[in-house]
Amino acid sequence: MALAQVSASKAHGGVQGVYRHASAATGTEMEFSVFVPDHAPGAKLPVVWYLSGLTCTQANVTEKGEFRAACAEHGLIFVAPDTSPRGDGVADDPDGAYDFGLGAGFYLDATEAPFSAHYRMRHYIEDELPALIAEAFPADMARQSIMGHSMGGHGALTVSLRNPGRFRAVSAFAPIVAPSEVPWGEKAFARYLGPDRTAWAQYDACGLIEAGARLPEILVDQGTADGFLAEQLRPQRLADACAAAGIDLTLRMQEGYDHSYYFISSFMADHLGWHAARLKG
Amino acid sequence: MALAQVSASKAHGGVQGVYRHASAATGTEMEFSVFVPDHAPGAKLPVVWYLSGLTCTQANVTEKGEFRAACAEHGLIFVAPDTSPRGDGVADDPDGAYDFGLGAGFYLDATEAPFSAHYRMRHYIEDELPALIAEAFPADMARQSIMGHSMGGHGALTVSLRNPGRFRAVSAFAPIVAPSEVPWGEKAFARYLGPDRTAWAQYDACGLIEAGARLPEILVDQGTADGFLAEQLRPQRLADACAAAGIDLTLRMQEGYDHSYYFISSFMADHLGWHAARLKG
Repeated sequence: MALAQVSASKAHGGVQGVYRHASAATGTEMEFSVFVPDHAPGAKLPVVWYLSGLTCTQANVTEKGEFRAACAEHGLIFVAPDTSPRGDGVADDPDGAYDFGLGAGFYLDATEAPFSAHYRMRHYIEDELPALIAEAFPADMARQSIMGHSMGGHGALTVSLRNPGRFRAVSAFAPIVAPSEVPWGEKAFARYLGPDRTAWAQYDACGLIEAGARLPEILVDQGTADGFLAEQLRPQRLADACAAAGIDLTLRMQEGYDHSYYFISSFMADHLGWHAARLKG
Repeated sequence: MALAQVSASKAHGGVQGVYRHASAATGTEMEFSVFVPDHAPGAKLPVVWYLSGLTCTQANVTEKGEFRAACAEHGLIFVAPDTSPRGDGVADDPDGAYDFGLGAGFYLDATEAPFSAHYRMRHYIEDELPALIAEAFPADMARQSIMGHSMGGHGALTVSLRNPGRFRAVSAFAPIVAPSEVPWGEKAFARYLGPDRTAWAQYDACGLIEAGARLPEILVDQGTADGFLAEQLRPQRLADACAAAGIDLTLRMQEGYDHSYYFISSFMADHLGWHAARLKG
């Protein structure tokens, strides 16, 4: 798997890079960013995965996430993938809507044409990209954690629930917790996966928990001034599912915060400290 | 002076706002950002001015500067103006070059047509915007400091050298220190100010120092991997001028850092701590 370096800049003592590669999973070129903090020669560092939300590329969190100081402090590699395949021949929303198609891959493997040709983000995030990270960076793949925002919070929760034991810590900012039950997810799942809702359950965090999937604990921050809170996010739905399943969910309603990177960046260092404690233990 | 709020988001416990107003100085609408940290009712906070570099608007540092955590910690208001007038009727570089015209106001009052009609950034930054900040925000204008990047480093140095006693701290990231002697400044000053170099001296940090202007101390960080270092920035020129004038310059050559916000954000918290110590003393 050849990896092309798009850019690399020294930052907070480490290197913030952006990379491209030909993805077998999506059949497209994919771009992602990796921050590697300063480290001893030969050392292998824990890896934090960050999955982004609707409309984002790797660039949003890379530029606005305020994660590098904390990653440098704790010695964490930070990986930020794109949110969908892109490029010539990749089907998009017929109306160009922001919540489906390009920038809105929902971290699933589509089964419906024409999306099934390239929208294979589950396989990309769960299999292909981890192998590439393990090969190309000083990553200790026995010490991984995952976090995400909104659609990426959905991604972090569902990827970790489907892969028990892979991640030592799981957290999210304003996640979509039950996509099968809200407009964003209903639209996307119907088009990517078809009308049969039994195929949706593997991509629904609350559905997975109710079907028996378990994580030891989850940290979620949710802004009370988030315009998507009531219609799309509904964190109480996750709280109820976790309570019934005995999952230790810490749900913090953050007064006055919205859905933006101003919210994410305000709590990023706190999340990374929480991850670091679990990755180093 | 009416102020329109473009956006406001809670961040790091405070409010990150973007504002627009009709500027008398430039004869245009001007946009700027202000971060106000959480504070006691009625309290007045010190103000840090941040002047941006070529091609930037207020948005670059607002999104990528990683200043809010430190401003919240130290209780500092952070003001980020635009770098030029913009809008219908504002003359630009005839070739659309990045280093002159829109996004490249050089914090001066142009005297040459057609630029003299709107390019009055010195008056805007030194007089009009401070009055607006004092009126609209909980700002203690007796405790101000200033910093900037590249062209904005030039701005921070020259504004502070021309206004002795106004700023308790002055620092810069990769500043243009002698614009009269480098291609960026020679191009801009000839077009904004005309061919007579005696009119340039008031906008040249090294020229101002050599003409007798003084600051007690200056902090400068400069990346050694900055592609503009040798041709446009030349920090040793400032070091020589400060040494001859008895100005306490701390010039830190930062190994491997480039000219980007990855560099700025790496040292932003350190600069703000340095400012805070002088603003609170």
